[in-house]
Amino acid sequence: MSRRRYTADRMDTGARAKSVGSPPEGVFSPIPTPFDADGSVDCDGLTRNLGHWIAAGLHGFVVLGSAGEGPLLSEEESMTVLRAARAAIPEDRWMIAGVGRHSTALTVAAARAAKKAGADAALVLPPYYYRRVTSEDALVAHYRAVVEGAGMPLLVYNMPAYTGLDLAPSAIVRLARLEGVVGIKDSSGDLGKLAFVRREASPSFSVLAGSAGFFVPALAAGASGGVLALANIAPESCLRLWSLARDGAWDDARELQGRLIPVNEAITRRWGPSGLKAALDVLGLTGGAPRPPLESLSEGGRGELTTVLRRAGLLPASEEVR
Amino acid sequence: MSRRRYTADRMDTGARAKSVGSPPEGVFSPIPTPFDADGSVDCDGLTRNLGHWIAAGLHGFVVLGSAGEGPLLSEEESMTVLRAARAAIPEDRWMIAGVGRHSTALTVAAARAAKKAGADAALVLPPYYYRRVTSEDALVAHYRAVVEGAGMPLLVYNMPAYTGLDLAPSAIVRLARLEGVVGIKDSSGDLGKLAFVRREASPSFSVLAGSAGFFVPALAAGASGGVLALANIAPESCLRLWSLARDGAWDDARELQGRLIPVNEAITRRWGPSGLKAALDVLGLTGGAPRPPLESLSEGGRGELTTVLRRAGLLPASEEVR
Amino acid sequence: MSRRRYTADRMDTGARAKSVGSPPEGVFSPIPTPFDADGSVDCDGLTRNLGHWIAAGLHGFVVLGSAGEGPLLSEEESMTVLRAARAAIPEDRWMIAGVGRHSTALTVAAARAAKKAGADAALVLPPYYYRRVTSEDALVAHYRAVVEGAGMPLLVYNMPAYTGLDLAPSAIVRLARLEGVVGIKDSSGDLGKLAFVRREASPSFSVLAGSAGFFVPALAAGASGGVLALANIAPESCLRLWSLARDGAWDDARELQGRLIPVNEAITRRWGPSGLKAALDVLGLTGGAPRPPLESLSEGGRGELTTVLRRAGLLPASEEVR
Amino acid sequence: MSRRRYTADRMDTGARAKSVGSPPEGVFSPIPTPFDADGSVDCDGLTRNLGHWIAAGLHGFVVLGSAGEGPLLSEEESMTVLRAARAAIPEDRWMIAGVGRHSTALTVAAARAAKKAGADAALVLPPYYYRRVTSEDALVAHYRAVVEGAGMPLLVYNMPAYTGLDLAPSAIVRLARLEGVVGIKDSSGDLGKLAFVRREASPSFSVLAGSAGFFVPALAAGASGGVLALANIAPESCLRLWSLARDGAWDDARELQGRLIPVNEAITRRWGPSGLKAALDVLGLTGGAPRPPLESLSEGGRGELTTVLRRAGLLPASEEVR
Repeated sequence: MSRRRYTADRMDTGARAKSVGSPPEGVFSPIPTPFDADGSVDCDGLTRNLGHWIAAGLHGFVVLGSAGEGPLLSEEESMTVLRAARAAIPEDRWMIAGVGRHSTALTVAAARAAKKAGADAALVLPPYYYRRVTSEDALVAHYRAVVEGAGMPLLVYNMPAYTGLDLAPSAIVRLARLEGVVGIKDSSGDLGKLAFVRREASPSFSVLAGSAGFFVPALAAGASGGVLALANIAPESCLRLWSLARDGAWDDARELQGRLIPVNEAITRRWGPSGLKAALDVLGLTGGAPRPPLESLSEGGRGELTTVLRRAGLLPASEEVR
Repeated sequence: MSRRRYTADRMDTGARAKSVGSPPEGVFSPIPTPFDADGSVDCDGLTRNLGHWIAAGLHGFVVLGSAGEGPLLSEEESMTVLRAARAAIPEDRWMIAGVGRHSTALTVAAARAAKKAGADAALVLPPYYYRRVTSEDALVAHYRAVVEGAGMPLLVYNMPAYTGLDLAPSAIVRLARLEGVVGIKDSSGDLGKLAFVRREASPSFSVLAGSAGFFVPALAAGASGGVLALANIAPESCLRLWSLARDGAWDDARELQGRLIPVNEAITRRWGPSGLKAALDVLGLTGGAPRPPLESLSEGGRGELTTVLRRAGLLPASEEVR
Repeated sequence: MSRRRYTADRMDTGARAKSVGSPPEGVFSPIPTPFDADGSVDCDGLTRNLGHWIAAGLHGFVVLGSAGEGPLLSEEESMTVLRAARAAIPEDRWMIAGVGRHSTALTVAAARAAKKAGADAALVLPPYYYRRVTSEDALVAHYRAVVEGAGMPLLVYNMPAYTGLDLAPSAIVRLARLEGVVGIKDSSGDLGKLAFVRREASPSFSVLAGSAGFFVPALAAGASGGVLALANIAPESCLRLWSLARDGAWDDARELQGRLIPVNEAITRRWGPSGLKAALDVLGLTGGAPRPPLESLSEGGRGELTTVLRRAGLLPASEEVR
Repeated sequence: MSRRRYTADRMDTGARAKSVGSPPEGVFSPIPTPFDADGSVDCDGLTRNLGHWIAAGLHGFVVLGSAGEGPLLSEEESMTVLRAARAAIPEDRWMIAGVGRHSTALTVAAARAAKKAGADAALVLPPYYYRRVTSEDALVAHYRAVVEGAGMPLLVYNMPAYTGLDLAPSAIVRLARLEGVVGIKDSSGDLGKLAFVRREASPSFSVLAGSAGFFVPALAAGASGGVLALANIAPESCLRLWSLARDGAWDDARELQGRLIPVNEAITRRWGPSGLKAALDVLGLTGGAPRPPLESLSEGGRGELTTVLRRAGLLPASEEVR
């Protein structure tokens, strides 16, 4: 399959370049973690994929997030993935490591290890297992300890669909005031909350949309960018959404987002990481099987997914897909 | 309190004028229902309030919605309110009647009665009491029967916070294809869903944001307008949000929406109709007590609310409020 | 189909007879409301069904509850049903009327009307539409006003699956202390809560299990009886569960309940009122179509249901069913 | 504080003795994990506590469950705790290890390690992080792989309050048919479900109530015993509940359970592991601080808790507590 290549000057899409003191801005992809046939981490596949996304001009990457099956890896495997990713990600692009753990101490340890492996920042889920007996004060204390212990910037990760915990606007604003907490990835899709946080937090606080499903409206609400599973599948289109929004071309942005939504649904809500990996396979990148209990898509599912990709213009109409 | 008055040419804010065959577009307020000291409907207060909002230029009104305590009124009282409202609302503005009931037959009857009282369209909650044993097919059949029986256009009303039922995107798209179903008011705040519906439904299908909390991003996602409790309190500002968004002045729109969000929170999520009515009282309009089990705000609550209104610039800093 | 008949001395199953000052105790059925082919209330069918259940020895009946499609009827129809039911229900059996409405005033009115139609007590859902802005104090005030206004005993109806509102143990205990609030029907299945209420409320406060799915353990936890949709289908078996539990024959009770659970699932969680009515049809009683948006069971569903009834021993193995 | 001591013949409370091929039965405590002042595992405290509970006659122990802060420990610490516990727990009592992880591979590894450390069985949470995209088939495959890989019996752990995933009755019955899956700990409190599983699964399948809040009714519904946080605080009373139920003395059982419910609430729903540890401190056992983000009880909370313990008769009325 022929695919257009982009040079690094795609970074001139208007996002602030990554630099000391600037929070993340622009389009990030939460990269999947490919596995070998025997189930171990496939670093070559990871590197190959990253080469593609870097060339496309993405502003940075989340490694070991939900799309990356982070919760399914051992601590050792996590380090392997982070090191391989950093080796492939140039210094001028963000590498943000997913490091959520249930205890404060384990989260600090994971963040430190991630920094040692080259991460620029940590993406930290709230400790959700005991959420029913965890006060807002305890949450704030947790994040304070993590950011102090990590020695690098931290982004809060609000992901209620997976954690069962939807951070309250007031809690987010408190977290945003902690030294070193530079942003939030919000996957709740609650744009009223996003707008509230955008207003109440410092202008330099980075508010990143957690899904392409609401990326354009989030930008209209003042988001600083997005961490989009879709950016793994359609990085150029996601960057174009970003550019269009910055240029005020909202009609075009909306039209393009609308076209991509069925793809986004397929790789997030409907099939999760399994769908994302199958789509990468269809597109000629390295997907492969997810780690159990996640399952590979069935033949039928793969056929449906191919149709969805083709309809969105991500595959030539006549193309043979493997 | 002195308040600027607007003439009807405020309608030139860019919304299509109400006309046969055009679905609702622009800024609508879900008006509260004032009660006398003895608890009966206060038609004079209703008329007075409407005069204010009409002069401000709102494109139309939802009568007997959630903000209007519709579920707390008898069938007879509902008719009284609709008739009084229609007498006050000029023909060139939308009057949309909330008519959700638990059975298809009762909903049809309520819609017919509303039409007789002068409503231009019906806003119909899904029948939610038996939602766990109601199929999507049954939902579609319900709406089909209602729109056919009502003899006037119908808007779907998705309000999961109150009904416990969040209409699936696929269900909404099916409903949007029914003859006479001209739009949806969506209060879920799920902008990914809104964008999906915007794309999948006919361009003439009206998608109205159900809360000012996400009005600007909803417009960016292609919404046709909003039904905003906040428009009862700050109609000019809500119209300005609409104009700014239409002019592509997203930064200004965002800034203005941000300023209004604390007010919106107070009159929706935090205090509901009780907060809305208290705010009207503070602003010199007719609020009064809500109907039990809803309670009037405490002294303390009223004080907080006044502060919120003042901070948002809706009250002069030095004003004496009653 | 031949069916054994029971005489009224079946009342000697150990429940206190209905009398002034005694709260409800024993096995109650929430009766369905049959409709004619044209959709109007079928009073003859109602009377016929009641004759069967009364002969079986049930201790009383809930009319216009969730199983009775109460929320789908107009106020006038509600009165028709209550009057017809009272004409058929002897004075020594309880007739409890479902009267939940969203406002305090409408609930009081409905309770008064029900009393006039002969109800012995009212079963009152919490006002749930505005549950997110309704305080526990407001809930208590609502029930106080209703019980005072109704002029007859009141039972609280906790039904979170339908209302989205699960009354807190502390709230239930406060309600139990109101003069005239004589019991609760709890359909949550949370037996820890039931045991807590049993302990904290007066011994004379009636705690009725809301489903046969947990009737035996509820009795073990101190419940006073149950309001069981299953009692419409298998009244003798439900009375036997009650007797066995009173006699301490828990193993037999458990065994019998286990046998009935698939039937109970079919007429509650799986198919709701539609399943209940179809089962009545299969058993030769008057079921008929539910009121839309509820749908009649499909042919396939009816076949499955028949199998479930047969396996539970409620149909002869070889019986022709209509 | 003087406390009565029980000899091991308390095991004659009627539970089957632990033996090859017999599933767990009786009263189990999910033991807390004490930490030193520096936050590391306090093996001495653990041993001391276990001595007390063993002497009281508990039938077995869950180590590293939710009450034991299992999710807050590293893999190394987990092994330390399991080894120390096994050294203290005689071979005739069950040691069940909590080994839930998000991936199948990590869960297998944890189960194997636990077996090596001397566990008799594994208690396995469903993999819940990706629950929205995990099919029932995938769940079954997960448990099959774990029980095959572990080489020891497995109990399913249904804990919806923490995981956001409530296993469906049908799923539980499928799991119960897997070779080696010998039981379930169900903390949902849904007794209808418990009764259904009791009926559909093999009689030898062990159904353990997950909370003392519904222990007595669960026994009435056919439960095989319970894993009760309360058994750490009041082991003799929990054993007595078990004996009373076996003897059919349901009134006494109910009365005793009722007395204990406020204590149970305090150490579960209200304060979780923090409350449990504070209660141990008050009773003279080894509690100490929980691991952050969990917080120690405030002074006020500790006072309230002491009152609750005293009212339940677990502290002499006049006793000085530390």
